[in-house]
Amino acid sequence: MTYSKIVESIPTVVPFIAPEELEERLGSPFLLRLGANESPFGSSSFGVKGAKAALDSLQNYADPRALELRGVLGKKLSVPIESTVLAGGIDELLSLFCRLFLSPGDHVVTTLGSYPTFDFAAMGTGATIIKVPYKDLRPDLDSLAEAAQNAKVVYLANPDNPSGWYHEAEALKKFIEGIPSSCVLLLDEAYIEFLTTQVPLAFDCESPNVIRLRTFSKIFGLAGLRLGYAVAHPDHIEALDKIRLHFGVSSVAQAAGILAVQHFGHTILVRERNAKARELLSQMGVRRGLAPLPSWTNFVTFDCGSKEVAESQLEQLLQARVFIRKPSQPPLDRCIRITVGTPEELELLDQLWDTE
Amino acid sequence: MTYSKIVESIPTVVPFIAPEELEERLGSPFLLRLGANESPFGSSSFGVKGAKAALDSLQNYADPRALELRGVLGKKLSVPIESTVLAGGIDELLSLFCRLFLSPGDHVVTTLGSYPTFDFAAMGTGATIIKVPYKDLRPDLDSLAEAAQNAKVVYLANPDNPSGWYHEAEALKKFIEGIPSSCVLLLDEAYIEFLTTQVPLAFDCESPNVIRLRTFSKIFGLAGLRLGYAVAHPDHIEALDKIRLHFGVSSVAQAAGILAVQHFGHTILVRERNAKARELLSQMGVRRGLAPLPSWTNFVTFDCGSKEVAESQLEQLLQARVFIRKPSQPPLDRCIRITVGTPEELELLDQLWDTE
Repeated sequence: MTYSKIVESIPTVVPFIAPEELEERLGSPFLLRLGANESPFGSSSFGVKGAKAALDSLQNYADPRALELRGVLGKKLSVPIESTVLAGGIDELLSLFCRLFLSPGDHVVTTLGSYPTFDFAAMGTGATIIKVPYKDLRPDLDSLAEAAQNAKVVYLANPDNPSGWYHEAEALKKFIEGIPSSCVLLLDEAYIEFLTTQVPLAFDCESPNVIRLRTFSKIFGLAGLRLGYAVAHPDHIEALDKIRLHFGVSSVAQAAGILAVQHFGHTILVRERNAKARELLSQMGVRRGLAPLPSWTNFVTFDCGSKEVAESQLEQLLQARVFIRKPSQPPLDRCIRITVGTPEELELLDQLWDTE
Repeated sequence: MTYSKIVESIPTVVPFIAPEELEERLGSPFLLRLGANESPFGSSSFGVKGAKAALDSLQNYADPRALELRGVLGKKLSVPIESTVLAGGIDELLSLFCRLFLSPGDHVVTTLGSYPTFDFAAMGTGATIIKVPYKDLRPDLDSLAEAAQNAKVVYLANPDNPSGWYHEAEALKKFIEGIPSSCVLLLDEAYIEFLTTQVPLAFDCESPNVIRLRTFSKIFGLAGLRLGYAVAHPDHIEALDKIRLHFGVSSVAQAAGILAVQHFGHTILVRERNAKARELLSQMGVRRGLAPLPSWTNFVTFDCGSKEVAESQLEQLLQARVFIRKPSQPPLDRCIRITVGTPEELELLDQLWDTE
């Protein structure tokens, strides 16, 4: 019994070790869960209300075209419904768009040490991954564009994870202009709603070269539901119908998404609370001699100066039963990444950090 | 901008036209939804209870290994947890296992006119599909085994959809023995829990040649949640980690699944009600001169004698705002397929059927 050529050719690598698995290794549950960039400010209450209402008819399959939620999104974002598609989070969208564009041997470009699930999705198509290192601890747009000259797909998270960096719309535009017409940019905007003053890049659904990916997991606090969407040229959305899981997005997620988008107050509130928490968290690191990288997200990445110090910080926090992450690839491997918390959670973090 | 070689090579075919789309075409909503084999008897109340409890922590990602639900399933089915994996329904499992085993040009075998989502999943890998016709309006195991000699994957739904037929364990064993060791059987058991007296084939997780696929969409009435599982040789489950969506199964679905499996009363109750409803529904067809095929599922397929009569029956019921399906491939294209309903629904069907 042999597996497919692609599966036989790729290693068994899981994109993330689950916090539940870390808890097993440590032998006790975490006191603080600040490692998965989940929302400490809870879920959109309207989203939860929508989900709850959907529980009354779980025996039915949801509309595979998801017209209602796509309509609401289209209206909110001022894009045509034909340019929208839903899936189970950005993770599934990455997998789908990689399968849409990539054949074995095709080249894809990403930043070394950026979101590993993109690498995982690209590997699953048999593509060859070109990894461009961070420069000044942020994605290097010039080098990414250069590497993209012979690639079919280039991935950029903006704001980026795990660096936290945000490239302004003007820089992005220039970057996009430098990408060849045979290459598509998968622009992962999981953290875009956390921006406070910046204006994100305008949507351009006429362009076949940029696909925008967004999620309900972060600012909406609906990670457990699995819901994300893409905005792209309608041809891509139509082509995706050839391979996407037509009945894949649950009725519960669709119902939650509709109310969450229609009632945007939660987003505004969380954005403010997040910005304050980020400042508090940054100061906590500063007091411990760690340098917070600028962040436009719901986490702060601290430069510990060396990989050894970062590893010791990680270990100390895990032992104190605080779940955080440490980037594994240089140069960010000298950093630790901590998700923001509520004021209460940050107070507890302050107590648990350096308690040895 | 070109798509992947596989995507460029396959047609745009959607496995099913959604009932919502049919409603748009008809210009009014259905009065009866008896076309998607959804449970008329509602959802497992414990499942719903589990789902509701999960709404309290939607901001968190679920355990990507889903250890708790897999543990509960393993215990219930007496199979090792290492032989289980979850995904968003059998649809996603079909896609994943096709990608696990199939490279472009590989051969797969299925029954002409059986579950189209398998064909869709296989096409998505670039495989060549060999379609073996139904014989005596049921899957033809001998011819399937013969066609499987040069195939990597063979698909069988047992009980079958849309014929409703069930092959007993002994016949299945013989069939499996006839499949070459280089070929794997994807055994779709979406309807297996509706069996009343038969004993399903025993699980054999030592065998790499049989993968069992099951769902929470049918007897558990949790279609809207998207949850299914596979039982297979642990090597296959491990290999699937290379390509599966690790954070794909929602926390809501996992929580619902745990309670639904632990509280099995719903299944027993629905099984009984389903058998009665199937009998009632069959008689309603008989009174209209249609011959019900034997069914071990939650639907009845009626032989209308000719494709023309079947089409006219379909059209008449759609016009009466009753959602049903008609198989599109011969010989079953002379049949219509109607999902069972509650006694009230069947009474309404009786009124709406032949009202012109």
